[in-house]
Amino acid sequence: MNSSHIEQTMRHHLARLLPNHLSSEIYTYATLPGGKLFRPHLVWSILKDLNPALYEKSKNDVHSAHSLLATAVEFHHSYTLIHDDLPSMDDDTERRGKPCTHIAYGEWQALLAGDGLLNMSYQLLSKMKGHRTLELMRFFSWALGPKGLIHGQVLDLSHEMTKSLENTLRTHELKTARLIQVAILGSAILASEKNSQLEKKLWKYSRLLGINFQLIDDLSELSEAVLSDHEKEVNPWLHHPEKTFEVTVNALATFDQLSAELNLTGTNAIIKDYYGKMLSLITPNQSVIENHLNKQSILPVMLLLKSFSE
Amino acid sequence: MNSSHIEQTMRHHLARLLPNHLSSEIYTYATLPGGKLFRPHLVWSILKDLNPALYEKSKNDVHSAHSLLATAVEFHHSYTLIHDDLPSMDDDTERRGKPCTHIAYGEWQALLAGDGLLNMSYQLLSKMKGHRTLELMRFFSWALGPKGLIHGQVLDLSHEMTKSLENTLRTHELKTARLIQVAILGSAILASEKNSQLEKKLWKYSRLLGINFQLIDDLSELSEAVLSDHEKEVNPWLHHPEKTFEVTVNALATFDQLSAELNLTGTNAIIKDYYGKMLSLITPNQSVIENHLNKQSILPVMLLLKSFSE
Repeated sequence: MNSSHIEQTMRHHLARLLPNHLSSEIYTYATLPGGKLFRPHLVWSILKDLNPALYEKSKNDVHSAHSLLATAVEFHHSYTLIHDDLPSMDDDTERRGKPCTHIAYGEWQALLAGDGLLNMSYQLLSKMKGHRTLELMRFFSWALGPKGLIHGQVLDLSHEMTKSLENTLRTHELKTARLIQVAILGSAILASEKNSQLEKKLWKYSRLLGINFQLIDDLSELSEAVLSDHEKEVNPWLHHPEKTFEVTVNALATFDQLSAELNLTGTNAIIKDYYGKMLSLITPNQSVIENHLNKQSILPVMLLLKSFSE
Repeated sequence: MNSSHIEQTMRHHLARLLPNHLSSEIYTYATLPGGKLFRPHLVWSILKDLNPALYEKSKNDVHSAHSLLATAVEFHHSYTLIHDDLPSMDDDTERRGKPCTHIAYGEWQALLAGDGLLNMSYQLLSKMKGHRTLELMRFFSWALGPKGLIHGQVLDLSHEMTKSLENTLRTHELKTARLIQVAILGSAILASEKNSQLEKKLWKYSRLLGINFQLIDDLSELSEAVLSDHEKEVNPWLHHPEKTFEVTVNALATFDQLSAELNLTGTNAIIKDYYGKMLSLITPNQSVIENHLNKQSILPVMLLLKSFSE
């Protein structure tokens, strides 16, 4: 699956779900072009790995369950970004190299577009035909609701996140991993009949992936010589360098084991590609990062990422 | 169905859907005590009118489809109120005689609680068992999404609403009527097998009810001798007194016809009760209101409301 195909499907659904009105433009601005599209790519790669025949049948049908899920996951992700950037939240001004939605269109416009995309993610799910649709929706709404992603946002903004490494990891699990879990496990739910053992493994796999994703991202954020106050406050590598190092190495190793066991060829390729990109961000800045960590060597993490991305 | 029963069901679901964490308190603050609970009352009365046996079976079961819908509709309503009150939206400070959620808990807390309640409304729907659940969800998410309620909020905040009486009525339809339609038509969808003719009539009935609800509310807002700038800007009775009068009288009359035709005894009783309350707000202020309308008599509207509420 290539990114332009994913974006084309997003465009199709935007056109159908939005009113024919000038105000709809904000939705395109907030969702396209779509960044890395990591989550929709995971939806498709898991389907291809688990059920190649269904993948072939689904990929060119914008109304297939997986087209709907891939779009719903990305719309839901976009809503969290719009709301996270608002002045009362993270108060950001730039996103993906352009002004944040509320900077470009105004604050109430961005707030409502976020609400709109949140609604649209469920609207897309409600158009699915398979018999596991409601099961998927229960998982989706639990993982992304007040016990899931939203609780992660609360832990972050209330500064509870930074009180211990455990709290940081819990926040990463809720705020970052849950949406990745919805992409992976959600895709698996729609790919075949119930298989509790596989789904349990995919739960662990996607949970670890989400946490690693965020920890490696945290590490790469230290590439700048001068860090923002926010970065200084929330980055676990600065506060618990040794423990964070240990947790990351263990999580990467456990994830590696599970990857081999599950043998998800296509999905593992996407993740390798991602780790390769992260490594290429980290490598040229190794000494800058190590300075922030009081010279602690990050070489072992880099070697692990390298072994993954080969 | 009494209000305390509805609130008890809401409390049950809040406890189940929220994390065991201090931050969950805001959800109770924002939803309870629950105001008039007009929408959940409509869910129950429609069920009782259309399928009394299912009503008896469902009313004491917090997991029945109608308990879930009544709670979902009220949670969804609460989310719109929280977000509408935010500084970047209507910038209100009081709601139901207490400080708005963002005044009591802070702005990002209120924003996230709104997002949480929006998610929870879909989470509740996803727990339904009947075979028309997905059909209900398609209607729910369409009516309350960017082509529905959210477009009404856009028309309101962009001031497009006040450019003509037609725009005002369209805004009332989207912003107010759609949620009332979800309560009424949603309840009917879950009450029995598909009946296109009944559902078409209920669509009209609930649409007119929602628009009348808002127009009578607009009229009652003129009970104060001194009006706020916002009220002066948006109230259709001030800008188009004669046309608004005509539209209201026609809509009330058409609604009366449909009510008689549909013979929804319990639901009509709730609406009569509501109109009676509105009349008791308007009657003592008749002359104040007529002053705002350049002495135009509102007696015919009052008589219509009186005939309804008897």
